Amino acid sequence: MSEHEPTPPFYLGIDLGGTNVKSGVVDDMGRALSSVSVPTHAERGGKEGVETLARAGEKAVEASGLTWKQISAVGLGSPGTMDIEQGMLLEPPNLPGWENLPVRRLLEERLGVPTVLQNDGNAAAYGEYWAGAGKGQRSVVMFTLGTGVGCGIVVDGRILEGRHSHGGECGHIIVQMIGGRRCSCGGDGHLEAYASATSVARRAHEALADPAVVSALRAIDIHDVDSKAVALAAANGDALAIRLVEETAYYLAVGAVSLMHTIDPDIVLFGGGMIAAGPSFLAMIQQHVARLAFPIPAAKTQVEYALLGGHAGFIGAAGCARALHGPSGR
Amino acid sequence: MSEHEPTPPFYLGIDLGGTNVKSGVVDDMGRALSSVSVPTHAERGGKEGVETLARAGEKAVEASGLTWKQISAVGLGSPGTMDIEQGMLLEPPNLPGWENLPVRRLLEERLGVPTVLQNDGNAAAYGEYWAGAGKGQRSVVMFTLGTGVGCGIVVDGRILEGRHSHGGECGHIIVQMIGGRRCSCGGDGHLEAYASATSVARRAHEALADPAVVSALRAIDIHDVDSKAVALAAANGDALAIRLVEETAYYLAVGAVSLMHTIDPDIVLFGGGMIAAGPSFLAMIQQHVARLAFPIPAAKTQVEYALLGGHAGFIGAAGCARALHGPSGR
Repeated sequence: MSEHEPTPPFYLGIDLGGTNVKSGVVDDMGRALSSVSVPTHAERGGKEGVETLARAGEKAVEASGLTWKQISAVGLGSPGTMDIEQGMLLEPPNLPGWENLPVRRLLEERLGVPTVLQNDGNAAAYGEYWAGAGKGQRSVVMFTLGTGVGCGIVVDGRILEGRHSHGGECGHIIVQMIGGRRCSCGGDGHLEAYASATSVARRAHEALADPAVVSALRAIDIHDVDSKAVALAAANGDALAIRLVEETAYYLAVGAVSLMHTIDPDIVLFGGGMIAAGPSFLAMIQQHVARLAFPIPAAKTQVEYALLGGHAGFIGAAGCARALHGPSGR
Repeated sequence: MSEHEPTPPFYLGIDLGGTNVKSGVVDDMGRALSSVSVPTHAERGGKEGVETLARAGEKAVEASGLTWKQISAVGLGSPGTMDIEQGMLLEPPNLPGWENLPVRRLLEERLGVPTVLQNDGNAAAYGEYWAGAGKGQRSVVMFTLGTGVGCGIVVDGRILEGRHSHGGECGHIIVQMIGGRRCSCGGDGHLEAYASATSVARRAHEALADPAVVSALRAIDIHDVDSKAVALAAANGDALAIRLVEETAYYLAVGAVSLMHTIDPDIVLFGGGMIAAGPSFLAMIQQHVARLAFPIPAAKTQVEYALLGGHAGFIGAAGCARALHGPSGR
């Protein structure tokens, strides 16, 4: 069998987001054979939602050229809160009407294939561990940078789920305990309140509220000043935007270092939309980490971008299905 | 066999500190059969140090009424830095002259019994997990409050050692990333810079430097204003001391919550000299945790004092010896 030929068994991964459901069939090496995206229509609630998830899965199987009989197990990654062991969504803030939903059982009944539930940040980290930038490492911490700051932790090949499914919620570690910014979750001083795309935009708006501040960002409608606009302006040499990007790199380095002094993984990964800022942004994070961390992890722990992009979630969810139900399962 | 009769096999635990070496024989249930303490004389260096460790161990075996033949394995807990897997001390700041010391091999050769090395904070956490306040739990985070802030993490019965022996170095997570206090390690804004006994004393000195501040602590020589004096003054109703204690409780709660959002253990424990401040101090920490943590861990994660006191280190080290070399080993 050639290196690029799909390797059975096959798994279906589904990545449930507030806006879209991404799904794909993944082979035993962690390679995606298909990839589809459909709108979540979260507002229609959980019962309709399970049907949306099932159809997204069916589309992915169809697109892969395989049949359902070839799918060994299904993995679903979802935002929390949840009870991973019970396969229950509890009160997911981005999925109104999906409360207390036994989503694993419902999806398993609908699809007729063994199904596992995992937190989306954990699933993305597991995807990178299995088949992405963490391949070959034993322990991985991954931050997913978007509207919020997601996180997942893999130690010795196992996801750190936590005893109440709150393991790896590291967007909500407290990095500024005195006078910290308000987080979207309502807490104060959380990493996410400083380092999310939302925070970059908010910090830009705050700076621009001072009429004395000169910036190319003033040429844009204030409502269009988001993290992408800031990254672009920084790349074009705008001083304010450069400062905002540099601060963000520092905040992320603080998060990475606190995890290096807690989990001490082989590698810390950053994924999500914000890594479009490119290699100079990563270099800034790496420089801060090298300065802030203890000498041994500073020298030995890798800090890199993730490799799987928007596929990390469903590939990782498929990997979780494989870990529990496949021939290589635990 | 009665519940209180010692249960073989037996293990020797040795807890190496910068000032004293504590040692004891521990039975298979985690009960200490003996407990001795001798001065470390760290300044005499590592070679002499191994002899001191061996003699402390011999005293503990003698005091237990057992013979060396009854000791199945030895566990040594030590401050870092170290390479746990290799059994090497690297550059322990509190043990000058002990650099690059293959302490596990040297001690094993000297005692003739299989020996394991573990970080002291990890060993204390494992002791509480095995035989103290974490008994019966699957996952434990423990902070040891003293001159510094030690930490250890046990997940599903295994110590989170990290890939470079820096797991659970949570005294050095960053809790105030902007304008943070300088830590003894040289870093800025670390938990230890706010919540150690040293920091309590420093913050008291800073407050007393303002002549307008009224406090009963002024009746004491400034050199005697330490964390114990602050705790005593707080218990006697001194407003400044009460504020310092309340702030310390908040800082510790911040550390606990960041770990609850990372590890999500069953229980977070606080041990070390500072817990002499008593149940009101614990209640303050618990109240802050309940307010700062996500609802589910806030409701479900226990936050308690440790139970083994100064024995946690050697009991935990003995437990590590048991885990690797005993009949119940992994």
